[in-house]
Amino acid sequence: MSNYTNSPCAACKFLRRKCTSDCVFAPYFPPEEPTKFANVHRIFGASNVSKILHEVAPHQREDAVNSLAYEAEARLKDPVYGCVGAISVLQRQVLRLQRELEETNADLMRYASCLGSETTSAYGGRRG
Amino acid sequence: MSNYTNSPCAACKFLRRKCTSDCVFAPYFPPEEPTKFANVHRIFGASNVSKILHEVAPHQREDAVNSLAYEAEARLKDPVYGCVGAISVLQRQVLRLQRELEETNADLMRYASCLGSETTSAYGGRRG
Repeated sequence: MSNYTNSPCAACKFLRRKCTSDCVFAPYFPPEEPTKFANVHRIFGASNVSKILHEVAPHQREDAVNSLAYEAEARLKDPVYGCVGAISVLQRQVLRLQRELEETNADLMRYASCLGSETTSAYGGRRG
Repeated sequence: MSNYTNSPCAACKFLRRKCTSDCVFAPYFPPEEPTKFANVHRIFGASNVSKILHEVAPHQREDAVNSLAYEAEARLKDPVYGCVGAISVLQRQVLRLQRELEETNADLMRYASCLGSETTSAYGGRRG
């Protein structure tokens, strides 16, 4: 049963089965969030989700469910790339930022050396 | 049947079923790559993979299979976060790079204004 109400959890309600006190889904699929379970069920299947939950330590199950829900939602929005699409976008953004940072650092080095020679010239530094 | 050999595709071999000429898996799961199908089957289940393949246009199916294989492999390596872990790492990297770029741009502005006043002072520009 859900921790918060007397209703069966969203998973048991969806699967039309009795929600027992040791239900593996109940702590992570409260009845108020029916879509969360419907999504992971549609993409991974209830038995795969249950298998994954049993594979991870109890204190990591909430993170596991949330990452599965994130992946499932991404796959439903974009059946071709799912959340791998987000990875590609972020990888391209990282490459672009690294390039921009390199260019800005190069500009900074040029300014710094230019300022060095201006200062030397203006305040009587040695010149060749 | 696989396009390249007379063997059944990796999916039909795994599922121990006859691989027909219209097999939806055959073009994307050649018999030489048995792990690719085993992984997606373990995480998504064969019927969900088949459903996704039928939902997307034929020219997008290869990308869909490859992104599913990527997600499945990531989930097998990291059952808690799967490829959502990679998204978090990349998001943090983007934020760090954006901050670094902002700082470098601010340094550049300081150098530029400093160089401007040095130049003005050295070559007889107007001063207050």
